[in-house]
Parts: sequence; C-alpha cells; structure tokens
Amino acid sequence: MQKNVYEANLFLPKAGLVKLTWGNVSQINRDLGLIVIKPSGVPYEKMQEADMVVTDLSGKVLQGELNPSSDIPTHCVLYQKFPEIGAVVHTHSKWAVCWAQAGRGISAYGTTHADTFYGTVPCTRDLTQTEVEVDYEVETGKVIVETFNEKKLDPLAIPAVIVKGHGPFTWGDTPQKAVENSLILEEVAEMALHSEELASATECLLPGYLLDKHYFRKHGSAAYYGQF
Amino acid sequence: MQKNVYEANLFLPKAGLVKLTWGNVSQINRDLGLIVIKPSGVPYEKMQEADMVVTDLSGKVLQGELNPSSDIPTHCVLYQKFPEIGAVVHTHSKWAVCWAQAGRGISAYGTTHADTFYGTVPCTRDLTQTEVEVDYEVETGKVIVETFNEKKLDPLAIPAVIVKGHGPFTWGDTPQKAVENSLILEEVAEMALHSEELASATECLLPGYLLDKHYFRKHGSAAYYGQF
Amino acid sequence: MQKNVYEANLFLPKAGLVKLTWGNVSQINRDLGLIVIKPSGVPYEKMQEADMVVTDLSGKVLQGELNPSSDIPTHCVLYQKFPEIGAVVHTHSKWAVCWAQAGRGISAYGTTHADTFYGTVPCTRDLTQTEVEVDYEVETGKVIVETFNEKKLDPLAIPAVIVKGHGPFTWGDTPQKAVENSLILEEVAEMALHSEELASATECLLPGYLLDKHYFRKHGSAAYYGQF
Amino acid sequence: MQKNVYEANLFLPKAGLVKLTWGNVSQINRDLGLIVIKPSGVPYEKMQEADMVVTDLSGKVLQGELNPSSDIPTHCVLYQKFPEIGAVVHTHSKWAVCWAQAGRGISAYGTTHADTFYGTVPCTRDLTQTEVEVDYEVETGKVIVETFNEKKLDPLAIPAVIVKGHGPFTWGDTPQKAVENSLILEEVAEMALHSEELASATECLLPGYLLDKHYFRKHGSAAYYGQF
Repeated sequence: MQKNVYEANLFLPKAGLVKLTWGNVSQINRDLGLIVIKPSGVPYEKMQEADMVVTDLSGKVLQGELNPSSDIPTHCVLYQKFPEIGAVVHTHSKWAVCWAQAGRGISAYGTTHADTFYGTVPCTRDLTQTEVEVDYEVETGKVIVETFNEKKLDPLAIPAVIVKGHGPFTWGDTPQKAVENSLILEEVAEMALHSEELASATECLLPGYLLDKHYFRKHGSAAYYGQF
Repeated sequence: MQKNVYEANLFLPKAGLVKLTWGNVSQINRDLGLIVIKPSGVPYEKMQEADMVVTDLSGKVLQGELNPSSDIPTHCVLYQKFPEIGAVVHTHSKWAVCWAQAGRGISAYGTTHADTFYGTVPCTRDLTQTEVEVDYEVETGKVIVETFNEKKLDPLAIPAVIVKGHGPFTWGDTPQKAVENSLILEEVAEMALHSEELASATECLLPGYLLDKHYFRKHGSAAYYGQF
Repeated sequence: MQKNVYEANLFLPKAGLVKLTWGNVSQINRDLGLIVIKPSGVPYEKMQEADMVVTDLSGKVLQGELNPSSDIPTHCVLYQKFPEIGAVVHTHSKWAVCWAQAGRGISAYGTTHADTFYGTVPCTRDLTQTEVEVDYEVETGKVIVETFNEKKLDPLAIPAVIVKGHGPFTWGDTPQKAVENSLILEEVAEMALHSEELASATECLLPGYLLDKHYFRKHGSAAYYGQF
Repeated sequence: MQKNVYEANLFLPKAGLVKLTWGNVSQINRDLGLIVIKPSGVPYEKMQEADMVVTDLSGKVLQGELNPSSDIPTHCVLYQKFPEIGAVVHTHSKWAVCWAQAGRGISAYGTTHADTFYGTVPCTRDLTQTEVEVDYEVETGKVIVETFNEKKLDPLAIPAVIVKGHGPFTWGDTPQKAVENSLILEEVAEMALHSEELASATECLLPGYLLDKHYFRKHGSAAYYGQF
C-alpha cells in the first residue's frame, strides 16, 4: 500500500499537476482501519517509499517519523462520509485552481468531461471565518460533503470537487484512479476556460442526452468502451 | 499496415495531441477490404504492434483479441462516404476541443491554416437525442458527411472536421498524413483562438486570394513548395 | 557562496523562469560585507561557478574578471534597505512580466498565493524620466523600497515585487529560497490572470481570514505545515 | 557558412519556434555574392548540413540538388534593400502569428521588448490580389521594405516584422543573432497579448524614455550591458 501511494504521489509532478510540495495522495484500507498518506512538505525528489505516513482513520500517526500532510483531516472526513472511495488526491494544479479562485464549478462542456464526470464538478461555498479559524482542514472536508449532499450529487459519478479559493480534490477506488481523475479534471478545467473565450457558457453546455451517452459508454453495466 | 497504424498511434501522445487513451488512428486497405485500428482503451505505454485490430469494412473484427476503438463505426462511415481517404484520426486535442465545445468551425485566419485547409474547418450540428441514443458512433460519421455535403466542401481539400461538443476528426491518404493534419489542426485552433483576443473574427479573416495562393502553393498541379 | 549563487542561477532557466540571459541571482554576506552575483550577459550554458562576481556592498567588483549583472545597483539598494534579506532574484519570467507591463500588482486570489505572499504583491509606480536617465538601476531599487514603505508592507511577509513596465524581483534568506519565491510568483501570476477570465477581480479575492490562515499555517511560531 | 545556417535552422524546432517544416534561415555572403538557405519542405530530423542550398543574390541555385525554401525571393529582397543585414529568419511561431492574423504590430509594452526592439515591431499592410497572384514572395519582401520606409524605421534598430495574415520575419548580422531575434519576438508577442488581458493597450505602453534607456543600455556606443 505504501508503494502504491508513493508511486501515485510521484506521478503528480511528472504529470505537471504539482510544483514544489503542493499536492498529496492518500489511500485507505478500511479492513485494517489504516490510511497511508504523503508526509507534509517533503520535496518529491527526496521522498522515499518509507517516508509514507500510516495513520488511523482519525489521522493519528501509527507508523513513520514524519508528519503526515497537513491536509490529512480533510482526507479523513472524505473517507468517512464517502464510504465507497479508496483514495484521495489534492493538488494546486493550475487550471483547476483558476476555477477555485473564481469560485466556479466546471460545467460539462464536452464529451471529454462527460467520459469521467457525470455533470458539473461543483465548487464549494466559502468557509466562514469561524470554520477557518477553529478547525480548518476538517471543515474543508465537511464543506465538500455538504456540497455533494445539498446538490444531491453522487461522489462516485463525480469524483472531484473544487474547493473555493483553494483548489481541487479528487478521489477514486485506487490511488492510480484518483490521480487519473486529477489529470482529467485539469484537462477539462483548461478546455472549459478557453471554450468560454469562444462562446458563452450556455452555448458551450453539452446536451443532457450526450452527457448520458458518454458517461454510460464508459461506466455501469452497459459500458462498452475499453476491454473486458 | 499494422506497423504504420501502430506508429501513427504512438505519435499522438508524443506530439501532445493525446492524453491517456483519448485518441485513435485507423487505416483502410480498400483492395483487401480491411481496416486496421487501435484497440479500445489500451494505454499507449503498453500497446504493442500486434494489438492493432483488423476489421472488415463494417467494423467487424477479423483478427485480434481486443475490441477495436469504440469509434470504429465513425471511421467506417468516413471510409465509405469519402472514398478517396486512406486513414482517419480522432483525438481530444485541447485546442480543437475548445472549438468543438464552443460549437464553432475554425476560419482561415492565416497562411498556416491555408497551407493545409482550403477554407473553414467546419463544425457539425448537434446530434439529436435519437441519433445519440440509437446509433451514436454511426451517426457521428453521418453528421460529418452531412456537414461536408451541405456546405459543398471537398474532404480532400479540408481534411478535418470539428464534431460539436466532442472533438476533431482528421484524415489523409496515409496514417502519417492524417496524424500530421491533426497536429496542424491543433496548431491553427490555438492560434485562431488567440488571434480573436487581438482583433475581431472579421478582421482576422484571410483574403480569399491569399487563401488560394497558399493552398495551391502546396497542392495541385501548380504546387511549387517542397521537393519533387 | 559562489557555488550557492551559481546553482541558484542555473535553476532559473531549468525552471523556465529565464530565457537567454534575462535573469540574475545574488547573495549577500553581511558579516564579510560581500555580494556574489551572476556576471552580466553571460549565457547560462557557458557560465562557470568561477564566473560569479564578488563585489562590495556598493557593487564595486572585488574579485572576478567579468562585469557583474547590470542590475547590481538594484540588488545593493535592496540589501541596504531590507536588512533581513540574504538573496535577491530578478527575472523576466513571462506571467509576472505581463502584470508588470499592465502596471498591476497581483492580488491574493487563492491559498497558493497566501501560502507564500501575505497579501497583494505590489507593483511600483513608473520611474520619472529623470530617475531613468540619471541613475536607473539605483532608482529601480529605491522605487521598490518606496512602494513597500508607502504601503506599509513587510518585505519578509511579501518577498516579491513587480517593477512597472519591467518585471519581478524576489528575495529570501537564501538564494534557493529567493529562487523558489520567483517560481511561486510566476505560478500565481499566471493563475491570477486566468482567474480574471472566469470572474471579476472582486469575486476572485480571498477573504482576509483565509489569507491569514494559510500564511500562518506555513510561517511564524504557530506554523504547522511541513517537518520540524 | 553552410554549417552556420544548418545549425541555426536546427535551433528553430529545438526552441519551439517551428513545427513540421514551417521555417527557414538564410545567410548572405556579400563579398562572394552568395546566399545559403534551408531547402524547401525538408523535415528537420532528416536535414543534413550538405542539404543547405547555395544561391546567387537573385535566388538562383548555384549548388545543391534540392530546391531552396520557397521564401527565397523574400529573403533576396530583404538582403538587397537592407544592405547591413547578414541573415534572415522566417517562422510560423505561434504567438507572432497571432499578431499577424490579427493584422497588428507589437507595441513596446516592457523592457524585455525594449532591450531588443527599439519601438513597435510593425505589421505590413495586406498584399493586393495582383501582388499575391503575380509575384507573391517578391512582393512579400517589398511590402516589408515599404513598411519600414513609410514608418521611417531602421531595420537594424527593429530587426523584425509581422507580415499580415502570415507571420514573422526577423534578421540580424549572423544566423545566430537572427534566430535569437525570432525567439525574443515570440516571447514579447506572447507577453504583449496577455498584458492586454490585464490592462488596455494604452496603459501597457512603455514611456519613451524607458524605451530609450533599455535599448541603449544594450546597443550603441554607450551600452553597458554584458561583457566587452
């Protein structure tokens, strides 16, 4: 599991999704009650597989001499409230951050989006001053969950969120899948921004039936994309 | 032929035109009644020459244990209706997709465009709900053909199309040429978008006589660009 | 110290922050009264560690056969007026230069910015004709200091500035840190520009309490990001 | 001389200024009455030093079995009318092409521009239909010269031009310098475009005295940038 998490973390700078130490990947083992996560602020070039930090489900360190990512409480909330996910990724990838800074979700403007995200990737509300000051990282997790609950979204059908003023979180059943979702989110974030330079948001919006077609071409029992 | 198709497919990620598995190249042998195409959803790093799938002209697999690209029915329609083309490429290349998401064709704003595309690269209409639900990939091919017919365009003079909400298809006499057309389309798509940041679409439009000059400098019996 | 400065200079083109010879890094040793700086106009590929120029605190060459960077007087002013900094970097990095050319400071639009810069990275006023003609590089230093004084900004809390019509200067306690600040400035400069394509400047602005949270998560006695 | 021209040509794709075969570099030897230029349409990967074509001053091939670049007549006009230049470069580099497609010159928005180009890099007028049809490449050269004459510009002080609807030409005393000017033009073209996203063209314009300062810091008898 450490190996998986280590390699998924290394993929982030390689794919251009992370500069410096701005990102982290974790994985949960629900049977053992363990989370493995990147250590906080360790440069990717120096990071070793053995540096991965093992915590319990509340983020308390069980193994490893390094501090876990300071975002560990956010990961814990997501694992608790989204019981079907197996891995979480956070980055400051450029284009997704632009949407976060603008406080906007990313609508489904094309089939590239629809192939992975079944509708708008939502943007959270601002955290209140109290939420930020009292328990920031936990509240970040909570506001993500609140966003999915209020909009009645399925975190498995839309495995990504934009945290307002901050950046993206994505998830998946494995670290590799969660990282792939980060990469796809970044790609559709850039394309959506530039599409709006060419036409209005309304004109760019994909018809619902085409969203359905592409999403279910790749997901669910009637999927027929790829090999089986 | 497998080798040709395999290498043309590999060129796509190398040229930055494809991320993950978002693209495919096929080639037709009209004498033998065969199409060779990339398998569906196979990562480029793992793909072997022997993984290329051989189908008949209706897309039915003749050789290979993998499923062909799910876009094979679109390729088949294009080969049937554009009898002079020898290869087809589909990608989700970033800038061409932006035009697709905006639902706009790419006008000839400069000689870079005119050297390859003799006029606007057209954008298809939206597919109807029925077309999407009943026979999506076939209808994608049909709407491309419809677009060329209605606008009275010659697919050899404009070897590319933007499928609305989706992305580009290009073609050529060989896989290498079809892939090169994808690369050129991506380049002119980016430049056209940014040109419109500097001046209006009308101001950017190339005079018809300059379009003629550049296109026929490279194509037809009076061409004088390159070596002979 | 030459080694430090040499390696920090080499990092600039590697990180895409410098093309040709458009950048320089210096370091000060306040105990010895020495500054080490890149030589002027020497291509990075040919530059040797021994080419680093050693000057006194007024920029007079003490060691080395090459001329120091023509920006040395600006560095000297910054070292004199910002007594706690240990290194200075100047580049023409693309996105920061765009803000310089537009004559605008870069507001804190997100946590990526807040993690490093405690508020707007300010833009200087235009230098007057006399300032430019009489003692340009010294006046460039002075107008940076004037900007920080007039806006009552702490150069340690905002280790960067945009010089109007010109480009960014950053600083830090070490060359490595000053260069890292250049890289971060470039990243937030690009993201801020694109964020304004998605929402108004006002809508993009980070709440003050979130700026505080992120800045002090990484700086000061209550910091808890990273390892200790 | 072939070696010089060959290496300068190879630098273009390496620096990202040229895709496919879209560019060419030539050099003149005025004493011998010779021009050396890239062959037309030969891929950079296959091009050998011996493929460089030697022509007389009217572009007639003296040595080499390949056709010279189809732009050779433009180069000849520039050499004839700008008697102090030693090398010419033409590319379809992305950002400079955007300005060409928009039909706009590139104003001096910053010191990066002023360090190399002493004022606006001008854009030519449209060629007339007759000019395009009768002697296109010669007329392209003539309209460049006309632009410099009408605006009373010195081609040594502004070693670049934007040909409307087409792309940039640059020049210099050596192929290396002319290629460097292409690279700088591309950089300032991109920065100018993005600067206009942040402020109006008027707000971005550099004061004349700062243009003077930076240009003459690097050029002329009072230059003090670099080593001597």
